[in-house]
Formats: sequence, C-alpha cells, structure tokens
Amino acid sequence: MKDYIVTDEWKIIERGFQPEMNRVSESLFSLGNGQMGHRGNFEETYSGDSLQGSYIAGVYYPDKTRVGWWKNGYPEYFAKVLNAANWIGIRVEVDGEEFDLAHCEVIDFERVLDMKEGLLTRSVTARMASGKEVRVEARRFCSMAQPEIGAIRYRLTPLNFDGTITLTPYLDAGVTNEDANWDETFWKAISQEVVHKVGYLVAETKKTGFQVATGMKISASIEGGDPPLEAYCIKKDNFVSIAIEDQITQDQCFTLDKIAVNISSLNVEPSQLMEKARQHLGKAWEAGYDALFEAHRQVWASKWEHSDIRIEGDVAAQQGIRFNIFHLNQTYTGSDERLNIGPKGFTGEKYGGSTYWDTEAYCLPFYLSTADQHVARQLLVYRYRHLQKAIENASLLGFENGAALYPMVTMNGEECHNEWEITFEEIHRNGAIAYAIYDYVRYTADEAYLMEYGLEVLIAIARFWAQRVNYSEAKQQYVILGVTGPNEYENNVNNNWYTNLLAIWCMQYTMEVIRSVSHSNPEAWQSLCERIGFYEYTEMNHWKDVCSKMYLPEDPSRQVFLQQEGFLDKVIRPASELAADERPLNQKWSWDRILRSCYIKQADVLQGLYFFEEDYDEEVIRRNFDFYEPLTVHESSLSPCVHSILASRLGYRDKAYEMYLRTARLDLNDYNNDTEDGLHITSMAGTWMAVVKGFGGLRVQDGTLSLSPFLPQEWSRFAFKCRFRGALLEVVTDTNGTTIRHLGGQPAALMLHGEMRTLSAGQEFRK
Amino acid sequence: MKDYIVTDEWKIIERGFQPEMNRVSESLFSLGNGQMGHRGNFEETYSGDSLQGSYIAGVYYPDKTRVGWWKNGYPEYFAKVLNAANWIGIRVEVDGEEFDLAHCEVIDFERVLDMKEGLLTRSVTARMASGKEVRVEARRFCSMAQPEIGAIRYRLTPLNFDGTITLTPYLDAGVTNEDANWDETFWKAISQEVVHKVGYLVAETKKTGFQVATGMKISASIEGGDPPLEAYCIKKDNFVSIAIEDQITQDQCFTLDKIAVNISSLNVEPSQLMEKARQHLGKAWEAGYDALFEAHRQVWASKWEHSDIRIEGDVAAQQGIRFNIFHLNQTYTGSDERLNIGPKGFTGEKYGGSTYWDTEAYCLPFYLSTADQHVARQLLVYRYRHLQKAIENASLLGFENGAALYPMVTMNGEECHNEWEITFEEIHRNGAIAYAIYDYVRYTADEAYLMEYGLEVLIAIARFWAQRVNYSEAKQQYVILGVTGPNEYENNVNNNWYTNLLAIWCMQYTMEVIRSVSHSNPEAWQSLCERIGFYEYTEMNHWKDVCSKMYLPEDPSRQVFLQQEGFLDKVIRPASELAADERPLNQKWSWDRILRSCYIKQADVLQGLYFFEEDYDEEVIRRNFDFYEPLTVHESSLSPCVHSILASRLGYRDKAYEMYLRTARLDLNDYNNDTEDGLHITSMAGTWMAVVKGFGGLRVQDGTLSLSPFLPQEWSRFAFKCRFRGALLEVVTDTNGTTIRHLGGQPAALMLHGEMRTLSAGQEFRK
Repeated sequence: MKDYIVTDEWKIIERGFQPEMNRVSESLFSLGNGQMGHRGNFEETYSGDSLQGSYIAGVYYPDKTRVGWWKNGYPEYFAKVLNAANWIGIRVEVDGEEFDLAHCEVIDFERVLDMKEGLLTRSVTARMASGKEVRVEARRFCSMAQPEIGAIRYRLTPLNFDGTITLTPYLDAGVTNEDANWDETFWKAISQEVVHKVGYLVAETKKTGFQVATGMKISASIEGGDPPLEAYCIKKDNFVSIAIEDQITQDQCFTLDKIAVNISSLNVEPSQLMEKARQHLGKAWEAGYDALFEAHRQVWASKWEHSDIRIEGDVAAQQGIRFNIFHLNQTYTGSDERLNIGPKGFTGEKYGGSTYWDTEAYCLPFYLSTADQHVARQLLVYRYRHLQKAIENASLLGFENGAALYPMVTMNGEECHNEWEITFEEIHRNGAIAYAIYDYVRYTADEAYLMEYGLEVLIAIARFWAQRVNYSEAKQQYVILGVTGPNEYENNVNNNWYTNLLAIWCMQYTMEVIRSVSHSNPEAWQSLCERIGFYEYTEMNHWKDVCSKMYLPEDPSRQVFLQQEGFLDKVIRPASELAADERPLNQKWSWDRILRSCYIKQADVLQGLYFFEEDYDEEVIRRNFDFYEPLTVHESSLSPCVHSILASRLGYRDKAYEMYLRTARLDLNDYNNDTEDGLHITSMAGTWMAVVKGFGGLRVQDGTLSLSPFLPQEWSRFAFKCRFRGALLEVVTDTNGTTIRHLGGQPAALMLHGEMRTLSAGQEFRK
Repeated sequence: MKDYIVTDEWKIIERGFQPEMNRVSESLFSLGNGQMGHRGNFEETYSGDSLQGSYIAGVYYPDKTRVGWWKNGYPEYFAKVLNAANWIGIRVEVDGEEFDLAHCEVIDFERVLDMKEGLLTRSVTARMASGKEVRVEARRFCSMAQPEIGAIRYRLTPLNFDGTITLTPYLDAGVTNEDANWDETFWKAISQEVVHKVGYLVAETKKTGFQVATGMKISASIEGGDPPLEAYCIKKDNFVSIAIEDQITQDQCFTLDKIAVNISSLNVEPSQLMEKARQHLGKAWEAGYDALFEAHRQVWASKWEHSDIRIEGDVAAQQGIRFNIFHLNQTYTGSDERLNIGPKGFTGEKYGGSTYWDTEAYCLPFYLSTADQHVARQLLVYRYRHLQKAIENASLLGFENGAALYPMVTMNGEECHNEWEITFEEIHRNGAIAYAIYDYVRYTADEAYLMEYGLEVLIAIARFWAQRVNYSEAKQQYVILGVTGPNEYENNVNNNWYTNLLAIWCMQYTMEVIRSVSHSNPEAWQSLCERIGFYEYTEMNHWKDVCSKMYLPEDPSRQVFLQQEGFLDKVIRPASELAADERPLNQKWSWDRILRSCYIKQADVLQGLYFFEEDYDEEVIRRNFDFYEPLTVHESSLSPCVHSILASRLGYRDKAYEMYLRTARLDLNDYNNDTEDGLHITSMAGTWMAVVKGFGGLRVQDGTLSLSPFLPQEWSRFAFKCRFRGALLEVVTDTNGTTIRHLGGQPAALMLHGEMRTLSAGQEFRK
C-alpha cells in the first residue's frame, strides 16, 4: 500500500516529484474520453522510468503468440491494445540543453488531476544541470465534447537567466508496446506532412490495417514580446515536429498551445481520414484552447450532475469514489456500439483493452444508474453485433443449431484468449451476457429492446446451455461437466452451482421473454423464428426438461449450496488461518495447491445469490455467506464488491465496509502493487456498486426503485445520484435517515425502507 | 498409413527415391549408439525437403519460451535437444557442378538399413543437369564398440564421362534447430583447426555451456590411380572442410573414407576435449574403416544374440519387431547413468530428448529381459541421482520433510515442462518410478540395490504421497484431489483410481522394503534414517492410516473401478460409434469436449491392473477391460501395448493381435503421419512387451520366470530370447506348443503354462 497522493475531495494531487512512483502516477493521472486516452506522461522528454502510452479505442493488433500448447478450438491470435501515436510530446531545449526532469534538480513539483473539470495540470520548478532554473506549467485535457480533440497549454519561464528557448511539439507514431514480443513494432507510416505550424501523420497498424490520422496545430507567444519564430520542421516516417525558438529574458513566459486531433479508420474511410482530420482540427483551432476547455468542462459538469457520490466525514473516501466515477466516465461514454470497457481502460497495455464479462456483471449497473439508458443499451448492442461470431465460436467447439458461446476475451467478437480452462470452460460468461439483458430491461422497462435485439441473443445462449448439459444416467439428472466458475481457483470442475443455476435461469428467462414477445408481437416473433430456424415446441420442451432436472449440488447438513460437486472433500479451513507470508496465494502457492485448496478467488455461489437475491430468503443467503466468505481470499479485484453488497443486505455492516475498503482506493493506494500497469477500471464499477447497491440498498423490484440505505459509521453523510426511468434522483443518507430528492424528469415510483411513494420533480421522501 | 518400405527380415529398404517421403525416411534410417546419433540424411548436399539432425546424448539447451501463462512453481525453462555438429557431410562436385539429388534425374536408388550389422548403405545412380551420370555408394555406421566414433565410406564413379571430381568432407557446427524460436542459434564456436586431412572443431552450447569436440580424418583413393590431391581447406567459425580433387576417367571409382569423432564435456573436462578427441580419432584411424566396422558388427551380433525376436509366417511382422529392437538398442546402452531414453531417441528434435515416465513404465522391461541387468539398473540409478532435485521440486510445490516429486519431463533432474495440468498434476509418474524399482528387484533379485539406492528413493516418494492426500470429512476417507492420470484426456480430476492405487502401493511397498532391509541390514538402515531424518514410528503409522483409509472409486452395479470419481456422470458410448471424421479426437474436437467425454487417450484403470495383475482375479480384470477398452481411442502410442498384454492374459487373442498391430509398424508405416518428426522410441518398447509379455505371457512370480505363450494365428512360429537372473533363454512357440531352451549361464527356475522346471545350459522344456 502506498499513500503519497494528497487527499482532496475533487483533486488527485502529487506534491513533490516521486520518480520511483512515476509509473503509478502515470496510471493515476491518465486522461480519456471514451474514444482515446493516454497515461499521465510528461509532455517533455523524460528519460527516467516511464510507461509511455496513448490509446485509441478499438485499435488493436492480433498477436500470434500462443500461450500454452495449442489445443483444437483455440483462436489464432490474442488481441493487444496498441500504444498509438504520441501526440502530447513537446521537446524543450534551453540554450541547446534538453529539459528532462530525470536530469534536473526538482525544486518544486505538483501534478494535479482536477476530476471536476477533467483537467491535468503540472507545475514544476527545476534546476537544470547547467544551473539554469525554469518554471513549467502544463495543462491538458482530452475533450469530452469533441472526442477527436486533445489540447495542451504549455508555459515555460526562465527564472534565473536570459536565453534561447526551443519548444518542439511533435507527433510520433514510431512507438512500441512494452508487452511487444521481440521488440516488434506495430505501426507502418502512411503519410506525413508538416507546414507552417500544422503537422499530420497517418499510420497504419500492421496486419489489422487500422489507420489513424493524428494532427497538431500550434501557436506560441512570448509574454510582452513578438510571437516566436518557427525554426525548422522535421518530417520522417511516423514522425513530424515543428521547432519554435526564440530568445527570452528572465521571467518572461513562453507559451505554447498545442491542439491535436486523432481520427481512426473505425470511424472514417481511410481515404477520407486526412480530410476529416483537417476539418476537426480546423474547427477546434478556430475555437481555441479556452473555448475547447469550456465545452469540455460543461460535459464534465453534466456527467457529475448525474453520477456524483458525495461522502462527508471522510475525505479519502470522497476522493476514492470520485476517482472511480471519473475513470468510468472517461473510459466509456456509449458513443459507439463497437466499443466496450477494457479492464484497464486507456491507462495501460495489460489485458489488451479487450472486453471481458466484467462489463455485464460489474459495469452495467453503473451506466444504467448514472447515464442515459442509451449508454447501457450500447453495451448490450455491442454483444448483439457479435452474435454471429459467438455462434461461429460455439460451432468451432462442436455446438450446433445456432448456439452461441460468447468469447471470454474479445475485441471484435472473436475469441482471443487461449488457456483451455478459461477459453473453453469459463462459460458462465454466456450467462452474464443474458443476465445483463434482464438487468437492463428490468431497470429501464425498455421491453422493445427484447424484440429488436435481446431475444435473439437469449435464444442463442439458451441453445448453448441446452446442448452443453448432458444427462447423467448415474444421477438421473442433467449435469454440466468440465467448467471453470467465476472462482478461477477451481478449474475443470463438474456441476459448478453458479454455472448450473445460470444455465437454467437463461433457459427460463428466454422462455419467459418468448412467451411475452410472442404474445405482444406475434408477427415479429414469427419472423425471428423463421430467420433463426427456431422450433418452439421441440426446443422449449427440451429446455423445460433440462430446467426441471438440473442437478444443483447442495450440502444437506450445512444447508448450503456447494460451489461444485465434491467441494466438501477439501480441507475446509478459514483463510484467516493462513500465514501472512502465504498471501497472496497466487504468488506463494503452486497452482495445483491452490486448485485443491478450499480457497476462493472471487465470489462464486455468492455471485449467484447476488444475481438472484429475490429467489432466496435471507437465511439461505446468510448461511452461504457465512460458509463461503471466510474461505474467500479476494485475489480478484472484482471479488469484494459482491461480498460487500451481500453483507450490507444481511446487516453485516462492518463486513460490508471492510469489503468496500478493499477496492475503494485500490489504485490510489496501489494496494496490489500493480497500478503501474494501469488502473482497475472494471473493479471501479464494483466499488460504485458497493456504495449504491450495498450501503444504499438500491434494487429494482416489480418496476419500482427500492432503496434501504444505511450510513457506514465512518461517514457522517453520503449522497448519490441515480437515474431511473427518466427521473434524476438524489439519495442522501445521514445520521437522521435518508432523503430521496427528485431532481427532475419523469415521476418515479420508489420504495424507501419498504415504504412506497411516487415522486415528481422537486419532491422528496424522507425516512 | 504408408507402405513404401520393402519388407525384409533384417533390412529396412527404400527402393527408388521418394523425395516426398524423405523426412520419414530420414527418421527410419537413423543411426545411433547410445551416445550419439543422427538422422538418415545424405552425406552430400540435398536441397530438397529434409530435416538435418545430429544429436549428442545429454547435450541440451534451456529454452526460455514459456508455454502457457506462467504459474507459480513452474520451472524456468524447457529443455530442448540440440541439433549438433553435422559430421557426416561431404560436398560433391563434378567439373564444378554440385551433386544434389534434388537437381538430378535419379536413375536408380536404394537406401538400406541393415539392422543385423547396424549399417546404413545407399546406392544411387543419377544423371546430373549437365547430363553427366554418376554412381554413388555410401556406407556408414555409428560405432557401437567405440561410441565416440562414426565412419563413412563414400564412393563415386563417373559413368559416362571423364572429369574433375571434388569431394569436400566437412564438419559444420553452424547448425540450427527446426524448432528454434526466432531462428536462434545455439552453438558458439570455440576453436577450429584443419591440417593435412584432419579437421577439428570445438563448439559450445549457449547458456548450458556444454562443449563438444568433433573431428574427422579422411583418406581418399582412386581405383587404379594415384591418391587424389588435397586441393584446399576452409576454416571458419563452427566449420572446417577439406577439398580433395582429382581428374578421373569414366568407370574409375573415387573412394573417400571419413572417420569422425564426437566427444562432449559431459565426459571429458573442456580443457582435455581436444586431446581426447585426437586420441580417439587417432586410434580409430589406425584401425581403419574395415576393422572399426568389424568391431561394431560384433557388438550388434551380441545384441541380437540376446534380444532378437523371430517371427515366421509374417515377414512384415518380423521386420517390424526387429526395427523396434534395433532402435531400442541404438538409443540406450546403459553405458552412462546420466543418460536416459528420449521419446524420439536420436531421430528427431521433438520432445526435447528428455526423460518421461515412459522409461519406467514401458522401456524398463525390454532392457531387463534383453541386456545385462546393469543396463536396467543404470536407468534406476539415473533417478537416484536426481533425488535431491526431485525433493527440491516437491518443496517448490509446498511439500516438506524430504518428499520427492520427480519431474514430468527432465534432462538433468529439474522439471522442464510447464502446463499445470501435467507438470503439477500428472503425479502418477512418481509411482511409476517406485514401480520400476520393484520391477527391477523382482526380475533380477538384486536386493542389494534397495539398500544402496532404491530405498531412499522409495521413502522420498512415499513421503510425497503421504502429504499429497487429504482426509475428506465428507467421505471419512483419504482422497487425492486435482490430478491428471495416464489418461491425459481428463485433467484435474479427483480420486483417479490409478493414482490413488499407486499412492498406497508406494507406501506399502516402501514399508515392506523397510521391514526387510531394517532386518537384514540394521546398521545401514539406521544410518539412512539418520541421514534423511526418518522417524519410522510416526511416519509409517501415518502411511498405514492412509493406506487403510484410502478412497478408491468403484461402481458397485457394474463392479468396475472408476477411472475417477464422477466418471459415470458422462455419456458412456463406445468409441466405435464415433464417426470416422471425428477421429483422431485430439485433432477434431475441442479440448473441453474431449475432457467431458468418456473417451480415454490411454490405459488408466487398465494400467493399474497391468501393474498389479496378481492382486486381481481374472474376472475383475475382464470386467474392467470389457468396460474401458471400448471407450479407449488409443491416441497415445503408449496405449495399445497394455491393452494387448491384458487381452492376451484374458484370452482375447484377436483383440490382443489387433492392439499389437497398432504399434508394431507404427513408424515403418507412418500410421500417425508424424514419423517425419522422428521415431516413437518409447512406444517401441511397448510393442516388444506386447509380444513377450502379451503373446509370450512372460511374468515373474515368486522368483520364477513364468511363461504361457500362444501363437497368433497370423504367424507360424515365433521365438524370443530373454535373460533372467544370469540365464539366457530362448522361447519358441509354434503350432505344436512352446519350447524353452536354456542357451547358457546360470540355471533358471521356470514355469511354462503353469508347470515348474529348472533348466541348465543346453536343456529345454517343452509344453
């Protein structure tokens, strides 16, 4: 755990330069806007330890590296997110001496991320090797208003000398990935141009052939002087730069504005890329840095208006939750149905920027509650667009008749992970994708989604489960053999309770939707049946048979569900008895030892009880929680939130708060020692859930938004906003109870601590 | 299946050049002598498809390629056998035109491996692009008498021209592995020299630092002419050559003898390598090609004297079994306790030349019966020498108190395979290593081995099992969770019957040996106890408890043992019902589908019944065979032999013969389409077992060699030789019954079809 970030309600502050923490800081100070993003690298050259990274959403490379012995059915590649053109770079020379903090004495340093405004600033006073002292102030943002645009204002002031300052803003697509094999490069230069303070380059990714046009336009001024001169330009493969140089005197400030554009062939035909880049950059340039920033700031104001959580009595908690909300909003905006939420967002290379089931199981509720329903819908449409590839994926594995298995890891719908116990066996992901449809419709009442997109996905998933079971003669029941559940510390188990439960739930929910849709929209239903060759009678009869005869392992004596068949053959001993030097298990124990131990990486039975809470009475949930929670080591950042929510539900408030704390400041305090690789974006959504669904008790029941908040004793007050079916609500809880305020929009049916009320704009409900 | 090899009792013959089969032929025509070997490559340049390969026993490279996500406990590297200096090469030019069969019209071609004499010959008549016709006759062998020495006699005759012939014998350590990553090279040049018809080079492997000195001495003659002239020499990094050139006339024969030496730093201090190489080469040179060959031939005569199997009435079967015996004798001679039997021997790069449990489970019986007992003993001592590393390996995985887990794959005792389901879970290999000790002592009566080496290994293995079990409260029995059995088409199963059985057998046998040794040699026993900290009372009490309460899964209704717990939840359907286009499963089905199917890669329950046949009555074996054999797809070349032996035992003669045929000519007919990678050396021992233990019914019971042969109906007669406790025996079976002849050595107690007799040299026993 680290604790060098200054606590502040709205800002992330690094005070005093900490080079040994620089990679962590670069992750923490990342900026993004859903279409592009970059780590908190310095504009000027920094030769110290750093992970340089700029990322463009949806632009990936098909790495052929085979992880593990190739097994039949494995995909051909592993997608990796690409480090894209560095557009923030500005080389700085002072009388020919390069300004590089790694070679300076740093007198004063502050790096600040203002989350309210989405602005990264840095103020540095440093003494260079020559003894010259300079002050640098840099401000930058990735526009939330115009997601192609980023802007930088860079100011340099000589403090103890007169001299020649050269600022050389550049664009550089000659970048590499740190996780590249054998120093492979990924970008092929297509074109470069640079004329009078404007530069462009177009680069193409090898193999995948994505093109990205990056452009910059610059202006420079000298306080109280004539505009400085353009000294020279450089243009070479994957690189352009423009050197601006002038003599300035002590205390005179040299200011450079650099406005940049990034457009990819995901959105524009390659032949049009340059034209579009010019248009966007031209328009942005006309507006200028200040107006661009104002438009950006307004989008952030609106984001916060809908998604803020306020915590009083604990500034660190306030900072932590806003940091999470800030990054979730930076990572995904719902503007493009082809994009999704990588586990590291735009903050690092790890996990290839790809989509995992994290999106459906952990992230969806955040966007459902804090953004227009269109945003969450886009996450669903993303999977709908991948349906044909999920069907192909299933057929590669021997499934027929339009059964779909969604990939474990994907960029474009194709599976791109190859470890058999995950790729082939972690099939519960398919259930989470169906659950997200249910979750969305339950929250939004957007029934139309089902006929338009959802049902086709549901049927393909139900077909998968119906084939994936087999009938056990020995048990005279259906079984699901050879799976890995959410708890990845068990591999290739039989009858994982969560997976079996999800399988029958998928079939049951699909049948429920079929009944409803075939009734409300018989023509569209008939046409879908024809298109996908669905024979209601035969297929649904089989589904019903499977649902009624599915084996769900239980222990009658403890009255708990069994994580999987045979779980009780293990030595059952609480994780609290493990010696400290054995933790984390995944670094200290060999894999086989982990597998045969009782220890759980992340919620498995409890994940099922969380999803289907309404189907179980409290005592069932309590018995299972009491049995499994002590065995859980939470070595996935996604684990604690589900435990926190259930603990809140069960009235285990201390436990709920303990679990909440495990992720609340995961990155800010670098608990897992891996923030340098990037932030844990999807787990941030889990933290949000621990507050809103856990402490706030937010649920949807029969079309009503239900809340039953309690105040963690460490806090004096907490308030969150949420949207529900066209209403914007604020839920404020303090030591006196809870007030729900309707801030605008449609009237909303609400339940607070079990009491129903319908609120309209301006009204409130206190209990 | 291919069928281009001419059938012959003693020879492997390729008649007519088949370039498309060249890699297969190169594997089939491989030569070796236990210390070195090489594929059947041509001496002269061949630009067609070829896998060039020369291998030196024990010389490997630590490949860092990580296969699979790295998991805690994985080894740091994967050993690969290295392609070593090519010493057979002779460049041939005719009036400056290179002789290369790929660019000739081949008029006549015959490649012959004479297995009786261990001689590879090749006769070629070819028309070169220029129209010049030449005849080449090449003979070579790897000396079984002096394993550092190889020799070639190469003759070239111009058939339709007079001209200048240049023969350039060379040594080339600038070779690569086909399975190298990124064209990595492995050999660093240390020194080269070439003077008057003698050349040497010393090369060192990168990272592992093995040095190998390779030398050649040549002489050339022209039929009816003066000796030809040395034209020029080349010496460069990792390469030396000597060009011999002369004018010859039509039908005049140009003969080149090339005698070569290979010595590695495994056997000689690096500083002494050159000196030793000179000594060996000098001595060999003095003897000359003919005398060297004669000494080599004599060793082969003696090998055949002790290991031949004669089959009458089926030349293909005769050729097949001798081919297997030939290669087993070429691959391992027992001369060096640091060497072992790689699955491909000296015939290819695959499987890294490393040691697998194949040695103990499949190969040991061959060497026990056909060679001096010292040879089999060396295979055991090999594991004894690796005991400390096996203890370290186990401690890496969390085991304590001197428990040993032998590696799945090894060169020097360290594990060098990393797939968790194999590396960590295929722990049955530990049992096979204990079983081999038992098998050896039972066969040889060499009880002294136990106190000297065996017991220490047994205790370390027993300690492993005693810790690897856990007590299941649910079952009130000991269980072994999370293993992979010999049937690798199941991964991470619980209570694999074979593994559980082997575990208790290991503890029981160890206790039996302790009882015996502590009685017969109490002092040595006490000293061992002190050395390894063995507390008889405590440890053995725990072992006894485990043995008495081990869970062994069974199905009471079918009265069969269960391959693993839960096996009967699968859909049980015989492999014969699989469509032809679904086979082999490992190429047609995804891995998860294989895992959850009932299909078996290789014997698992049956492997246990084969090992401990005496403990089960025939009906038990029959029920299990009848249940499991139909589910077995035999997609390991090691599978059929065990089935064949058990089928013979049960009187299922047709099934026994069918299973025997699946491996008897596996490589000669390239059944699995992979002979080009090298030969299936360890499975050859399985074929030998199918004949001797299967058709011959050879067993050891209470110190007696028991036989109960039957004649497969396709054969008119078969005879095999075997050694048993100092006696050399021949067992001849024809339509009239079986005769055992005592060919020499100690008297032997024998049982034939249940009748006891003691035979002395010259006596026979007929029944």
